Amino acid sequence: MSKYQALKEKVLRANKDLVSAGLVILTWGNASEIDRENGVVAIKPSGVAYDKMQASDIVITDLDGVVIEGTLNPSSDLMSHLALYKAFPEIGGVVHTHSTYATAAAQAGNDIPCYGTTHADTFYGAIPVTRALSQNEVERDYELNSGLVIVEHFNKNNIDVMSCPAALIKNHGPFTWGKDSLKAVENSIVLEEVAKMAALTLRFNKDAQEAPKYLQDKHYYRKHGANAYYGQKENK
Amino acid sequence: MSKYQALKEKVLRANKDLVSAGLVILTWGNASEIDRENGVVAIKPSGVAYDKMQASDIVITDLDGVVIEGTLNPSSDLMSHLALYKAFPEIGGVVHTHSTYATAAAQAGNDIPCYGTTHADTFYGAIPVTRALSQNEVERDYELNSGLVIVEHFNKNNIDVMSCPAALIKNHGPFTWGKDSLKAVENSIVLEEVAKMAALTLRFNKDAQEAPKYLQDKHYYRKHGANAYYGQKENK
Amino acid sequence: MSKYQALKEKVLRANKDLVSAGLVILTWGNASEIDRENGVVAIKPSGVAYDKMQASDIVITDLDGVVIEGTLNPSSDLMSHLALYKAFPEIGGVVHTHSTYATAAAQAGNDIPCYGTTHADTFYGAIPVTRALSQNEVERDYELNSGLVIVEHFNKNNIDVMSCPAALIKNHGPFTWGKDSLKAVENSIVLEEVAKMAALTLRFNKDAQEAPKYLQDKHYYRKHGANAYYGQKENK
Amino acid sequence: MSKYQALKEKVLRANKDLVSAGLVILTWGNASEIDRENGVVAIKPSGVAYDKMQASDIVITDLDGVVIEGTLNPSSDLMSHLALYKAFPEIGGVVHTHSTYATAAAQAGNDIPCYGTTHADTFYGAIPVTRALSQNEVERDYELNSGLVIVEHFNKNNIDVMSCPAALIKNHGPFTWGKDSLKAVENSIVLEEVAKMAALTLRFNKDAQEAPKYLQDKHYYRKHGANAYYGQKENK
Repeated sequence: MSKYQALKEKVLRANKDLVSAGLVILTWGNASEIDRENGVVAIKPSGVAYDKMQASDIVITDLDGVVIEGTLNPSSDLMSHLALYKAFPEIGGVVHTHSTYATAAAQAGNDIPCYGTTHADTFYGAIPVTRALSQNEVERDYELNSGLVIVEHFNKNNIDVMSCPAALIKNHGPFTWGKDSLKAVENSIVLEEVAKMAALTLRFNKDAQEAPKYLQDKHYYRKHGANAYYGQKENK
Repeated sequence: MSKYQALKEKVLRANKDLVSAGLVILTWGNASEIDRENGVVAIKPSGVAYDKMQASDIVITDLDGVVIEGTLNPSSDLMSHLALYKAFPEIGGVVHTHSTYATAAAQAGNDIPCYGTTHADTFYGAIPVTRALSQNEVERDYELNSGLVIVEHFNKNNIDVMSCPAALIKNHGPFTWGKDSLKAVENSIVLEEVAKMAALTLRFNKDAQEAPKYLQDKHYYRKHGANAYYGQKENK
Repeated sequence: MSKYQALKEKVLRANKDLVSAGLVILTWGNASEIDRENGVVAIKPSGVAYDKMQASDIVITDLDGVVIEGTLNPSSDLMSHLALYKAFPEIGGVVHTHSTYATAAAQAGNDIPCYGTTHADTFYGAIPVTRALSQNEVERDYELNSGLVIVEHFNKNNIDVMSCPAALIKNHGPFTWGKDSLKAVENSIVLEEVAKMAALTLRFNKDAQEAPKYLQDKHYYRKHGANAYYGQKENK
Repeated sequence: MSKYQALKEKVLRANKDLVSAGLVILTWGNASEIDRENGVVAIKPSGVAYDKMQASDIVITDLDGVVIEGTLNPSSDLMSHLALYKAFPEIGGVVHTHSTYATAAAQAGNDIPCYGTTHADTFYGAIPVTRALSQNEVERDYELNSGLVIVEHFNKNNIDVMSCPAALIKNHGPFTWGKDSLKAVENSIVLEEVAKMAALTLRFNKDAQEAPKYLQDKHYYRKHGANAYYGQKENK
């Protein structure tokens, strides 16, 4: 049995959870998790039907994308995941989907402002859209550059990657992350709901304003950091 | 066995009904019920997965929020529930959700006008949005103040709490209530549907008008009060 | 056993089909069917949960609304159904719901124009919204007047009740009908879908135009009347 | 047993997949597949309930629409399917639905622009709306002309039928196609999702722009043609 059996099973579950949460149709989505101690990443195989996918189909690669275990091709988005893992040591899991509302927001090209506490509970500040990739970045090393444009955006704008665990790539769609693959899945569920609420907020009031900064602070820090008091002790 | 066993089971069911009605994802929502004779409230524990929640996980507190039975932390929104129970003796159950359309309306910051009889059957008049909480109210006793801002709005505007069993907290989301926890859940289902219909009404006609006052009266009093004639006798 | 047992079972099924089609939540909706030979109508009881409803709960009344069989109160909308049966001898079944999009259209107060063939296959021409009921009509014999305002609209505008088996009561919601209760249910399913498509059509193009009259004719008469050629022979 | 038994079973599955994908309600939709070697097409019967449909109900016709096997009438849209098979030899399967968002787009009368990579992965360039059929085309050989107007649009605008496997008929709805009936079903699923995302993109930003041409190229050719690298080898 593979030494990565538990990791493969967890990543399998993360990928299947994306389907049961309604975030993925057909084969559109992928979740991965890194084992930093062993320097490997477990990721979904490319273009395989979710209902037939088994733990043994999950591909293990090193941080350069070389396959270490598995007979299938890894997700074509592998290099995007690796770029995020390399740039952000806090990240343990990455998810990419084409979930409906988050993708529409990415296509629209506008950040998702923080209109309320549902957003603030998980994402500190607006959820950013990256710049469009240049023709050169698309034609050479496209998937790698898709990851790097997120890294560029977070570094240039000094956004803490764990306080805002999501980004929208312009004209493409969302990436989310977290301490592990299951948390990244949870963040992709929240992102889709927050994107839907933002669209509806604008329908009720096209001039809707962001929530006050002090309310955003309150909700975010109620759930995160040293003074968090939401949930049970073992979850913190 | 706890003397509050039946109450815990009812509150457990109310919380699970929120999930099956599609009003709650992840752990976002909470229902409670008060036992006024014994001066206690039963409420959902904080941050526990709904599918694993059992009656024994429901927390019993007194009206100051001191835990009387239960090993888990009560919902972080407990103090909001208690503020409503203290201010409004008619209320027996309280529900808080982040249901999609009602939350978007709260984020938009506009009341939901009564556009038709679906609304009027349950809510007499517009469903109000409270003012935003001040920075001071957010930073100190936030959850208590979230309840108090609803109380303030209903008292200042002279709204009967049983005729309009819902409020939207600006930039946050809905609270509903009723004679018990199950009625509060039902009111949260109606609120979400009414909020959705209001958004769609505006899409069909951005200048849509409120239903005539005499139609609102008719529908509300057809179902409520001494002259109600909807349903079977035992339900009145 | 009741001589109306088969009728009760059919009407029970029609009512339950409304729930499984997603047109009804809580107890919001009712289907009935007339037995013209015996001069009776079978209708849902008022305010009873759908999942517990049995054939024996279906109420049999005469055409004046006097209960002939059944221990429960008939739907509070009974008099609306009876007004339609009396005015339109072609009608065998009537359905009233608060389905989301159709109700929003009724609240908006605009007819649903025929934007395409999905609409034209079932409804010939626009689906009309009635005028608002007057204060007097609401305060006295409200449910009867809700039926009569539909009759008035169809007669005044010379609309054939079988070619357009639906109407929206302003600020209230939809009624549909058909040769029997199951056909009335089917028409309520089509109405809701057509209302949703109309809302989306306007979102794609706020200046969208009605389908050409000759296309509306083609689709309607492809499915209805002497020259229909859709479906199998036994269905015509 | 019919020599077309396997074909009938495949086409039955394609038709039922339309229902489980949520693209079809009632009897609104049809899938077919061509056996070019034997010069026959297998298609859904007209107006038969999906849940009762069996492989033996699937109708086999020749390319002129003459029934070769089957006791039921073929779909009333048969001649549209045949027109596409005759004009485009690459096509092996055809699907017609009234799926909600794609139909709304057809009613709106605007092409669906390529706003992002979800669209570009399957459809190269905008998804076109045909011109409206003339009165003469509707009144004589309507279904044949519905197919021919798609053929005209693709030929006149020099669109490659396999690069853009979908068209919207003005005021009617979508047709999709593919190498076989199951691929045509998949394309109808993608079309509906892409249409929904386009509507939402415009809601977030009414001035949203098409994705850059080089990004559209990249995504389309990542999945199609000699240099495709998405998925596993056996799927290419």
